[in-house]
Amino acid sequence: MKPAQRQMHLNLFVLNTGHHEASWRHPETHPESITDIRYYTKLAQTAESAKLDSLFIADALVLTPAVKYKILGGLEPLTLLSALAMGTERIGLIATVSTTYSEPFNVARMFSSLDHISGGRAGWNSVTSVGDATALNFGLERHPEHGDRYERAKEFLVVLKGLWDCWQDDAIVANKQTGIYSDYEHKIRALDHKGKHYSVRGPLNIGRSPQGYPVLVQAGSSDAGKELAAETAEVVFTAQDTLEHGRSFYADVKQRMSKYGRSPDELKILPGFCPIVGITETEAREKEALLNELTLPAFGLIRLSNALEMDLSQYPLDGPFPLEDLPSVDQVKGQKARFQMYVEMVRKENLTIRQLMLRTASARGHYTLAGTPKQIADEMEAWFTQEAADGFNVMPPYFPGGFEDFVNLVVPELQRRGLFRTEYTGRTLREHLGLKRPAAKNPQPIR
Amino acid sequence: MKPAQRQMHLNLFVLNTGHHEASWRHPETHPESITDIRYYTKLAQTAESAKLDSLFIADALVLTPAVKYKILGGLEPLTLLSALAMGTERIGLIATVSTTYSEPFNVARMFSSLDHISGGRAGWNSVTSVGDATALNFGLERHPEHGDRYERAKEFLVVLKGLWDCWQDDAIVANKQTGIYSDYEHKIRALDHKGKHYSVRGPLNIGRSPQGYPVLVQAGSSDAGKELAAETAEVVFTAQDTLEHGRSFYADVKQRMSKYGRSPDELKILPGFCPIVGITETEAREKEALLNELTLPAFGLIRLSNALEMDLSQYPLDGPFPLEDLPSVDQVKGQKARFQMYVEMVRKENLTIRQLMLRTASARGHYTLAGTPKQIADEMEAWFTQEAADGFNVMPPYFPGGFEDFVNLVVPELQRRGLFRTEYTGRTLREHLGLKRPAAKNPQPIR
Repeated sequence: MKPAQRQMHLNLFVLNTGHHEASWRHPETHPESITDIRYYTKLAQTAESAKLDSLFIADALVLTPAVKYKILGGLEPLTLLSALAMGTERIGLIATVSTTYSEPFNVARMFSSLDHISGGRAGWNSVTSVGDATALNFGLERHPEHGDRYERAKEFLVVLKGLWDCWQDDAIVANKQTGIYSDYEHKIRALDHKGKHYSVRGPLNIGRSPQGYPVLVQAGSSDAGKELAAETAEVVFTAQDTLEHGRSFYADVKQRMSKYGRSPDELKILPGFCPIVGITETEAREKEALLNELTLPAFGLIRLSNALEMDLSQYPLDGPFPLEDLPSVDQVKGQKARFQMYVEMVRKENLTIRQLMLRTASARGHYTLAGTPKQIADEMEAWFTQEAADGFNVMPPYFPGGFEDFVNLVVPELQRRGLFRTEYTGRTLREHLGLKRPAAKNPQPIR
Repeated sequence: MKPAQRQMHLNLFVLNTGHHEASWRHPETHPESITDIRYYTKLAQTAESAKLDSLFIADALVLTPAVKYKILGGLEPLTLLSALAMGTERIGLIATVSTTYSEPFNVARMFSSLDHISGGRAGWNSVTSVGDATALNFGLERHPEHGDRYERAKEFLVVLKGLWDCWQDDAIVANKQTGIYSDYEHKIRALDHKGKHYSVRGPLNIGRSPQGYPVLVQAGSSDAGKELAAETAEVVFTAQDTLEHGRSFYADVKQRMSKYGRSPDELKILPGFCPIVGITETEAREKEALLNELTLPAFGLIRLSNALEMDLSQYPLDGPFPLEDLPSVDQVKGQKARFQMYVEMVRKENLTIRQLMLRTASARGHYTLAGTPKQIADEMEAWFTQEAADGFNVMPPYFPGGFEDFVNLVVPELQRRGLFRTEYTGRTLREHLGLKRPAAKNPQPIR
């Protein structure tokens, strides 16, 4: 055995036919399979054969008109991952669920259930959702504003942790002789949470799950998002377009942790990474070009207009970018960090609308690299060793081919370099990530 | 081939170690397996090998102190059934979800997802939940009253059907050449529901599922419950303690359907039925006695006190039943039909508290019969041919043994009599039940 070396963590971000917005038009993808569980099972099994830590399903609770040009929506993450738990044995399963539009009791219950079903492989990516169109699906006229959403998200998490702690690990006695099933008086407690936004009595109606809690994942990169991550997250997905930005984000989040009594190891930062792999650099560039050619300006305009929260359709595609007409970052209601990234890209390189469109088509602004397996492994190693990343949220441009290239060509290269596991050593997602299983806190009898 | 004969529908009601409240103490059950997906997968596969129409998971969103004596709570139905969709191919999967404590958009989405995942095998048992203790888990002080809950349930269902109809079956175009993914203008519509309790804009963010809607199941047996079932349900689970009561319930619900323009065939009535099967009648009685001996009066008292909404612990177990101290049925907040059934049982047979406790221990008042395969098949045939049932909600006293006895001994007898299928002829739950797939209604372009 080699001496223990810090290892990369790799998550597969599963998204219908792939992360490039035109992936469904790629000759090798099958858009009709995006509601077919066999398609996802095969992807999950490929990811598990490559010993990835986990796979992850994003979500939005709204259907926008962009569905005219692009696959949107699809299977709901918790049901999808419960099904995928059955065709796999080791890989972690991270579901996105909104704190703004769900009941905490139901969310706690479903994640506990998924953790039991999967034998300790559940993770929860908590999001606060985006946009008034979502609010209108849930009886509200307006999406709560950024600060309010984060306040709710924080309290939501307190409630969930409390619910997951209601049962001590040894609460179930199941003594057939005496007829006592559980030590209700001493090992199960109510929560009695009464906060500003939530009031939840508990206890939860399911025993403590293999991991105690699912692994807590967040993806916010705004200031409030970073602070919440530093306080509570165990994995952070983030979009960083350069190694320098990655280093600065990494340092920023990790240094915020100490004031919450947390060590930097307790949080894994995984920047999104879209690898376009070719045997030669030319082949990689051709693959990228093929996808970009399939991008429709009509859709790209909608996507950018949504991200920048202004209607870009009135401006010439190849003229100068109308920076002066953009809202200010304070006015942005959705993802502030992405807004800032796009504006900075335009400023720095003086991009036209079309250029920004193509630059962000493959992975919505996440770092994209077309290259040989060695070039890609070099770049991943650089991010990893230079403290820009604890691993990556891998976002293949199209499925399954674009992911199979990564698995067959890049993963072995990372393994040869001793940067990534060749076998699973643990059974749970917490074990894969080197995260502790939390103890159930504050056992108190129910009054 | 035999001429077509009316066929029985059989649903397996899966409940942790079994329906007898003391089943977990039975020497052959494994209470530690109730959060183990392999245990449920095996049960589901047994049910599928017997060609049952479906299996069903009940639910409650609260943990009561009775968990000291009995298994309560457990895996959440939608996650559990999504997992079970993977180990099975034909059997229907019916999940209980509350209309009182869930967001309609999320519920519509998850059932659509389960229907896609299972290839058209999803069913939804809608319940309105019970008791203030549940309300306290969802930010309310009091559980909404019966009438209010039913009003909400009705509107909830209108919203769900509307969401399931947002996408026409042919909305997805996925034309790789033109780059048009969906016919958003003509084949996808918003819902724009603005009602008394819910306001949901839509469209749903998933395409129409194999069955259009999941099969709509209800279990309310109160007057309001029967009316709602007659108007909207496709399957009704009900507790009927005698053939006569079964006949009267069956006639009552079916005759209510015509005023909603529905034919009696569009609704299947499945009374709960707890079979305790022995090769001889003596063996069956011994099996029943073994379970009843394991019943703890301490628990039985809690259960009856909850069902009758008064504290029975202050009365002698073997003294006369304190009928005069009971609340009136109007005052009952929980299941009114069960309350009335228990009171009638006590009145008719002059039962003591202990006698009512044992009489309702095996299946909470559902019809229980200990007997030989022939006796049990005779009784099922009588209910089926005399219009007390379109089939049964089978509630084995303990798992897996009590269910395996039914599968190995009773099902073949029903098949010999031509009362139950020997092979699946369809793929979806609607096909098993002989229910039509609904067409997507009112296609309207989104304004």
